[in-house]
Amino acid sequence: MFLPVFQLLYEEWASYSVFYKYQPIGLIRKYFGEKIGLYFAWLGVYTQMLIPASLVGVIVFLYGCVTVDDDIPSMEICDQRKNITMCPLCDRVCSYWNLSVACGTARASHLFDNPTTVFFSIFMALWAAFFMEHWKRRQMRLNYEWDLTGFEDEEDHPRAEYEFRVMQKTLKKDHKSQKPEKEKLTCRDRFPAYMTNLIMMLLMIGVTFAIVFGVILYRISTKAALAMSSNPMTRSNVRLTVKTTAAIINLVVILILDEVYGAVARWLTVLEVPKTDKSFEERLIFKTFILKFVNAFTPIIYIAFFRGRLGGRPGSYLYVFESYRMEECAHGGCLMELCIQLSITMLGKQLIQNNLFEIGIPKLKKLIRYIKSKRGSYQEQENEKKLQRYETDYFLEPFVGLTPEYMEMIIQFGFVTLFVASFPLAPLFALLNNIIEIRLDAKKFVAELRRPDAARGKDIGIWYNILRGVAKVAVIVNAFVISFTSDFIPRLVYQYMYSPDGSMHGFVNHTLSYFNVSHFQNGTAPLEPFHLGFRVDICRYKDYREPPWSQTPYEISKEFWSVLAARLAFVIVFQNVVMLMSDVVDWIIPDIPKDISLQIHKEKILMMDLFMKEEKGKTRTEDSVTSKETRHSPLMRSRSISHTPCKNY
Amino acid sequence: MFLPVFQLLYEEWASYSVFYKYQPIGLIRKYFGEKIGLYFAWLGVYTQMLIPASLVGVIVFLYGCVTVDDDIPSMEICDQRKNITMCPLCDRVCSYWNLSVACGTARASHLFDNPTTVFFSIFMALWAAFFMEHWKRRQMRLNYEWDLTGFEDEEDHPRAEYEFRVMQKTLKKDHKSQKPEKEKLTCRDRFPAYMTNLIMMLLMIGVTFAIVFGVILYRISTKAALAMSSNPMTRSNVRLTVKTTAAIINLVVILILDEVYGAVARWLTVLEVPKTDKSFEERLIFKTFILKFVNAFTPIIYIAFFRGRLGGRPGSYLYVFESYRMEECAHGGCLMELCIQLSITMLGKQLIQNNLFEIGIPKLKKLIRYIKSKRGSYQEQENEKKLQRYETDYFLEPFVGLTPEYMEMIIQFGFVTLFVASFPLAPLFALLNNIIEIRLDAKKFVAELRRPDAARGKDIGIWYNILRGVAKVAVIVNAFVISFTSDFIPRLVYQYMYSPDGSMHGFVNHTLSYFNVSHFQNGTAPLEPFHLGFRVDICRYKDYREPPWSQTPYEISKEFWSVLAARLAFVIVFQNVVMLMSDVVDWIIPDIPKDISLQIHKEKILMMDLFMKEEKGKTRTEDSVTSKETRHSPLMRSRSISHTPCKNY
Repeated sequence: MFLPVFQLLYEEWASYSVFYKYQPIGLIRKYFGEKIGLYFAWLGVYTQMLIPASLVGVIVFLYGCVTVDDDIPSMEICDQRKNITMCPLCDRVCSYWNLSVACGTARASHLFDNPTTVFFSIFMALWAAFFMEHWKRRQMRLNYEWDLTGFEDEEDHPRAEYEFRVMQKTLKKDHKSQKPEKEKLTCRDRFPAYMTNLIMMLLMIGVTFAIVFGVILYRISTKAALAMSSNPMTRSNVRLTVKTTAAIINLVVILILDEVYGAVARWLTVLEVPKTDKSFEERLIFKTFILKFVNAFTPIIYIAFFRGRLGGRPGSYLYVFESYRMEECAHGGCLMELCIQLSITMLGKQLIQNNLFEIGIPKLKKLIRYIKSKRGSYQEQENEKKLQRYETDYFLEPFVGLTPEYMEMIIQFGFVTLFVASFPLAPLFALLNNIIEIRLDAKKFVAELRRPDAARGKDIGIWYNILRGVAKVAVIVNAFVISFTSDFIPRLVYQYMYSPDGSMHGFVNHTLSYFNVSHFQNGTAPLEPFHLGFRVDICRYKDYREPPWSQTPYEISKEFWSVLAARLAFVIVFQNVVMLMSDVVDWIIPDIPKDISLQIHKEKILMMDLFMKEEKGKTRTEDSVTSKETRHSPLMRSRSISHTPCKNY
Repeated sequence: MFLPVFQLLYEEWASYSVFYKYQPIGLIRKYFGEKIGLYFAWLGVYTQMLIPASLVGVIVFLYGCVTVDDDIPSMEICDQRKNITMCPLCDRVCSYWNLSVACGTARASHLFDNPTTVFFSIFMALWAAFFMEHWKRRQMRLNYEWDLTGFEDEEDHPRAEYEFRVMQKTLKKDHKSQKPEKEKLTCRDRFPAYMTNLIMMLLMIGVTFAIVFGVILYRISTKAALAMSSNPMTRSNVRLTVKTTAAIINLVVILILDEVYGAVARWLTVLEVPKTDKSFEERLIFKTFILKFVNAFTPIIYIAFFRGRLGGRPGSYLYVFESYRMEECAHGGCLMELCIQLSITMLGKQLIQNNLFEIGIPKLKKLIRYIKSKRGSYQEQENEKKLQRYETDYFLEPFVGLTPEYMEMIIQFGFVTLFVASFPLAPLFALLNNIIEIRLDAKKFVAELRRPDAARGKDIGIWYNILRGVAKVAVIVNAFVISFTSDFIPRLVYQYMYSPDGSMHGFVNHTLSYFNVSHFQNGTAPLEPFHLGFRVDICRYKDYREPPWSQTPYEISKEFWSVLAARLAFVIVFQNVVMLMSDVVDWIIPDIPKDISLQIHKEKILMMDLFMKEEKGKTRTEDSVTSKETRHSPLMRSRSISHTPCKNY
């Protein structure tokens, strides 16, 4: 019976050719145990749920493609006749430029930044809530089918490390008092470890921030250096080159730090000396998650919310290290850069971590182990063909737990939900990745790893809470992306408050402030004061500030404050409406499928009847002493779980 | 054994003299059953939790009292030398007035509107989260002590009304198909009832709004009428008279509608034909709660968020029915009026509903019933002294369920948490009320009501969810009260953005806009154009608008938008920080007390050991057939709850 399951799994599950089929979860559970079964069931549900999300995402994207020609703001930007002279993007060497240069970016931005994005964000928040509920029900059904409804985790035995620490403490104390009382580690004992944990976590997060800042510096300085180059081809490619290399550096840093953080989290958890294995695992997962999450999302959060907001204004730019101007976003908002960063990080992470780390490295390790064992036991070369099954299996990688698999998927879930407002194609990418991922993991579990010990498990544990947390954070992040990163709110405000005819015409002009070039600080004015043959007196920049001829030149204008108020109001409304809707979804869908709860109930009644019948027909011939003892012992209270049918046992 | 419990309850519980003692929950449960026991346990926990809340509330209030003389804005208002001429509060008959008139209100406002209020709101949100957790733990402990850990609600039998409807449907259908299949009410059958429900609920909420609007109209028109009175005494008392009578009218309306809404909710639930008694109760509670909640809080929400914001500005007031100007708030913000409304509603509701409805009316009813029975059975007057116990008990009120008791407390919980930012004494009022309420309810249950049927219950059911909902809503309501009703944010903005010296000096002047009296609409200028002997050219009003001499006179000013942005930003920060902190409280405190979970676990192990031992020593002499049958029957799956110790039963 053992071999057929394995063969079935190999043929019907661990193969790319069956990617469109449901997974044989029952078989997986039979061969690998409940915990791994639940992982694959969860992955299946998640992947399945990604299908509608990617469909809607693609529709949103296509809507953007179709309506790109009707978008008045990007039309205005692309209009050559408008001839809007923009202030230079860097000091001295950069020249004035015409807004129509940003035409391509503006049009591309519209693909991701159109009114349907708001709808899509709401949809994805509800999708996440629905996904949670759907998984809870599926889990309940599996629990029932796998006979786990009454299963509770076994008592966890303290870990050896914990016992050792307790023993040390007891020995120390024994010199004073001779009472042999049960010792345990108190908060005071753990305090140094907790402090180390806190400090190291903050330090690690600080390292992430420092690296992101380093990449920013790289970007600024390279841009400045390249801009000074005399080759016009180089200069025109500056933006793209810098953007792409920076994103790749970010990606590489993320990948390296991911490994470092994994090790740090483990070390910190060992320091903590958690009492049980379960607690160890949960603490480890929690720490790893925090670090990896911060690592993956810091550069993206910087681009979404800080980039281009710290640069200052012409004549009063913000300088880093007194020489580098903080970077600005291209016209059309930072949204396009956010998209690039998101897609590079997401695709890169998935491709590299999946293919290289999950396939390549295990294969390499296997090879190395094989070669080693061969070299070490040269004399056994002859016997190679006669090696026992368990001997060849020894060349396989050991199973290291499900944590890396879950972690990868949770970070992906973060990409799918957190910034979905700026990148509606994320669910599609995730879906494509997961279809491969399932079979890849399947192959790995079936053929690449030593067969893991089967372990029972009722649920996916702390991962569910982490998922919930990510889904909650996603709501607020999306609210901020829509209102602060995209141009959605400024457009609405313009249309309903400032537009003379209620249309979007004039929006671009409205978002640009005026700057008198004579107000440039010494040595920062462009070397080339002419643009298109004319001497430039006034240039424009993207901000809501008073014009030079007002009483308070370059002060933040009333428009800025009204747009800001609208943006914040949108965040409040969006967050509360979406949270309310998620709660309603959570509340309407029952956690236990109706048929399952009926079935459980029916079985309980049947069993009760049976016990009652037996009770009646039974003659008490034995154990009368025990029976009495039992009846009055406190043990009996737990039996009430099944209406005390065992009372006269 | 029965009498002593009753006597003990009567002496040790249902007496005001033991108000400082813990309630004898065990005895209550013994005499009244688990459900009522849980209610009193919950009431006890709630009252106990109110003690720290009222302490902190009183400290916040005292802090306000102590610092009232250091409050620069109210000092500026009270400063006679400043001599700020305010625009009249009503058309024609009202005259200009000096800002120093508002001195009293401004000083009183400071008692409730000082920086500690923000701290107190956060404290109360965490308090609510902590209360939930504390109750969950207490409930678990009671479950354990009362041997309910394994108790599940019995299968609910369909209600007779439901069965009748199903029968009707089956009979109708029988004419067509003769299949005797199990019928049930589908969504389609219930659709008319659902629609009626929805429409009636909306209608009832509409009635509440209409009545609140009616009270507003009363206030406006009375004020206008009284202001025209020639008696100066009357005129000076106008504000107070109108405010107080309006609040009392509101209160009376709330009390009457509360009764009406209770009846409407019951009628609507009967229409719905819910399947089980439990479902009936939950639907009824939910509807009643919605209606009573809206009823209690609509006038308060109007005062907190809408009053004074809809009035327009001098020269362009908003008129209702073309003759009544919308009301404004007194200077110093609407906070003072909110406080008055809150305290009248809360105190009045508690005093009248508790004392009149809960004590007076039952006594009256008892008297009537007694008189009736006496008159009807005149001949039995002789036997009166020999009446059996159950006969005299018949004169008592029947028990109508716990819903009204819980409802009262939940609405009170709403008062304690929802507007606590504007009224820090609410917890104290609630505490005082509850200390009486516990003993009052106790007396009622022991001596005034027929003894209720004991009912088992594991938890307080839907009420817990409603509590959670109220606590969630409270966070956002408090955020809005702090940022929009109080002057907290404008003060901060003034101090850090506009103040010339970083102090609060000049704040009052900053919040007042200028109005040129020549811009009054025809017939609305005051009859008396002089104030303190001078002809008034410019008067001031509370708003952020451009002065008459700007390019855009009376337009909303930049200050307005910046203050609005700050307010909204505060709401976002407050809401998310508080929600995060509540979640952390929720997460840190385990739901089951550690000793209880250990105890349960220990008992389970002991029991397993016992069964194992018995298994071994047992000779299978009987039931071998049954045993086999049982072992393979699906029934056994439920037994895995206790590691299948009954397997060979």
